[in-house]
Amino acid sequence: MKKLLITGFQPFGGETVNPALELVKQLAGKNINGYEVVAREIPVVRYEALDAVRSAVDEISPDAVIIVGQAGGRPDITVERIGIDVDDFRIPDNKGNQPVDEPVAKDGPIAYWATLPIKKMVANMKAAGIPASVSNSAGTYVCNHLLYGTLHLLATAGKAHIPAGFVHIPYLPEQMAVRKGIESQYPTMGVETLVKGFTAMIEALD
Amino acid sequence: MKKLLITGFQPFGGETVNPALELVKQLAGKNINGYEVVAREIPVVRYEALDAVRSAVDEISPDAVIIVGQAGGRPDITVERIGIDVDDFRIPDNKGNQPVDEPVAKDGPIAYWATLPIKKMVANMKAAGIPASVSNSAGTYVCNHLLYGTLHLLATAGKAHIPAGFVHIPYLPEQMAVRKGIESQYPTMGVETLVKGFTAMIEALD
Amino acid sequence: MKKLLITGFQPFGGETVNPALELVKQLAGKNINGYEVVAREIPVVRYEALDAVRSAVDEISPDAVIIVGQAGGRPDITVERIGIDVDDFRIPDNKGNQPVDEPVAKDGPIAYWATLPIKKMVANMKAAGIPASVSNSAGTYVCNHLLYGTLHLLATAGKAHIPAGFVHIPYLPEQMAVRKGIESQYPTMGVETLVKGFTAMIEALD
Amino acid sequence: MKKLLITGFQPFGGETVNPALELVKQLAGKNINGYEVVAREIPVVRYEALDAVRSAVDEISPDAVIIVGQAGGRPDITVERIGIDVDDFRIPDNKGNQPVDEPVAKDGPIAYWATLPIKKMVANMKAAGIPASVSNSAGTYVCNHLLYGTLHLLATAGKAHIPAGFVHIPYLPEQMAVRKGIESQYPTMGVETLVKGFTAMIEALD
Repeated sequence: MKKLLITGFQPFGGETVNPALELVKQLAGKNINGYEVVAREIPVVRYEALDAVRSAVDEISPDAVIIVGQAGGRPDITVERIGIDVDDFRIPDNKGNQPVDEPVAKDGPIAYWATLPIKKMVANMKAAGIPASVSNSAGTYVCNHLLYGTLHLLATAGKAHIPAGFVHIPYLPEQMAVRKGIESQYPTMGVETLVKGFTAMIEALD
Repeated sequence: MKKLLITGFQPFGGETVNPALELVKQLAGKNINGYEVVAREIPVVRYEALDAVRSAVDEISPDAVIIVGQAGGRPDITVERIGIDVDDFRIPDNKGNQPVDEPVAKDGPIAYWATLPIKKMVANMKAAGIPASVSNSAGTYVCNHLLYGTLHLLATAGKAHIPAGFVHIPYLPEQMAVRKGIESQYPTMGVETLVKGFTAMIEALD
Repeated sequence: MKKLLITGFQPFGGETVNPALELVKQLAGKNINGYEVVAREIPVVRYEALDAVRSAVDEISPDAVIIVGQAGGRPDITVERIGIDVDDFRIPDNKGNQPVDEPVAKDGPIAYWATLPIKKMVANMKAAGIPASVSNSAGTYVCNHLLYGTLHLLATAGKAHIPAGFVHIPYLPEQMAVRKGIESQYPTMGVETLVKGFTAMIEALD
Repeated sequence: MKKLLITGFQPFGGETVNPALELVKQLAGKNINGYEVVAREIPVVRYEALDAVRSAVDEISPDAVIIVGQAGGRPDITVERIGIDVDDFRIPDNKGNQPVDEPVAKDGPIAYWATLPIKKMVANMKAAGIPASVSNSAGTYVCNHLLYGTLHLLATAGKAHIPAGFVHIPYLPEQMAVRKGIESQYPTMGVETLVKGFTAMIEALD
């Protein structure tokens, strides 16, 4: 059976939960579209995030890689089109790193296209009744760091044939339930909806 | 066993689904907090909406009344504080009525407070991890028409002791999944999350 | 010449500026549509706000009263339709008062309609190219306190013939310029646009 | 005196006005920070937009190039960091072209960094009280087409030393004033505020 490596970040930015981690725990061990889903937890730390993906790729030899992260404020599941060669952290990562306009990889190209079938993934989710769209920016924080870094890693390791990319998901309901006032007025998506969406998304893989 | 009348509107405004109707179908027949939940479908039509509630109250003799409607664009479950004596429809209702600045009831007071324990309902939902808040406006469309009208009906029929009010809910995911571009970028809430929220909400009733 | 009393609140909630105050300073002394505009600054304090309006009304004997407040997060100029008899402050006022579900006036009606020509005011602003709409809730903070309180004051003082109401305005650009990240992503409106809008709005008065 | 080429797009997508065009008309002919501002109008048409910039560059020999476009829905002035090699138009351009996932330039790199001092431009605007931020995506419509295309043009013509980039601006107030309901609830920025912002921004150029 083929293997899908799916990763979820640990909580960051003062949150006690990360929707990505909650989601990948739900998907771990499932068989979807001929893929065994293997889940891994990733630290929200520059370079360490990438080390964790590198180890998982070496260990699992996946046939596809989907990195999942939280995009607080977005209302739908967004599949990233591109990772760019910049680390420009608005807030420190979980070990206090806060690079400004530094490259992810000094010797890398300016950007990599995600190699997942992003349009088909979005179409499948929408057909399943789950709000989804293509995004053209994964930001410049650890999410983009890991997207770009993973694509660079695969490209330089002769593994560019492994489809890889990044999917951003909204806040979970429980994250907004503990807030008050205007800070609580961001969109959320429940885990059940996320699982339905990701199941449809994984059906889009070859 | 006590009875809770919970109503959901039919689709309107070009939508093929109304989250309120989908939700109350899920709740119908459940026993929660000592209440048997009795669900009714309501037309999005001025006065006819109110006739439907009047008939249901007469038939069921409920111990509490919760009217549910869609508030497209809001991210959380909002419990309305007040209904006001005005019909000012931005779009026609499902029979083409479009009153401008007309009263709901010519002989009524300017407004009624909802008689549900709105603060406790919100607190219960938040404690259960569901985003919720008090709202101070149910608008001036059929939602407010039915909120004000029901409170006026109960007050003038000597039934003001029956707690009654209105709860607005976000779009369902499937409603945004069929849209494109910026029109698709509104918050949604899945039925599973809504059911959890309403279960916690009903636990707040005496 | 007729007199228009227009009031602006002092800064609150950690802000160093209040767009309402900046706006009314610009309008002070102008003659618009046969009205001399008389501006007054209002403390963001329960009851004291109302005392300030009462004094101004006694002193000026205005022919119309427009109270202006900040509605952070709204993108357009909103003319309030109704004030309701509740003080339910999410944050303390500038003297630390934070009432929960208390009445503005114990002996007052549940609500008052604003007595300004709200629809014509909105139409005039839109015709002048300024985004505007009717709002059905002034919240439950000092803004609604002063709206309800002023209408109650005029009604109980035999001055209900003086048109009075409340207009909410967005953040100023400079308020968002000092913020970072997602907290900076709220709509703003410049003073020039506000002045154009209010000039068109005042043209709607009889 | 140095020359700054600043371009504004024609209206598109059903709008009768484009804020970018209105803005550059205001800036045309001004002298700011030692630059004479030369404004040009650009068609919202694939390739033709780029032809217009190429001609202007040849004619004017500018010392810096700022392309301005509308980003409906954004609340602040956003300076783009990167242009990417893809045309993926959600709506047709003004001549009906609607490419899907096609390159801007078949022989170009995957992306170009904008060569303007984007961080300093944002900092200058914020210091002047104008909301501004760096954006990491100019989308995949004619805006990004022209950003990427201009940077590619300059790079391949031996003119990479000319700082060039793209600035997105919000809707104008008059664009929302003609809309109704939820479609009118997007942020706007008045021309006066835009002019202040761009003046501060141009002060950031060397």
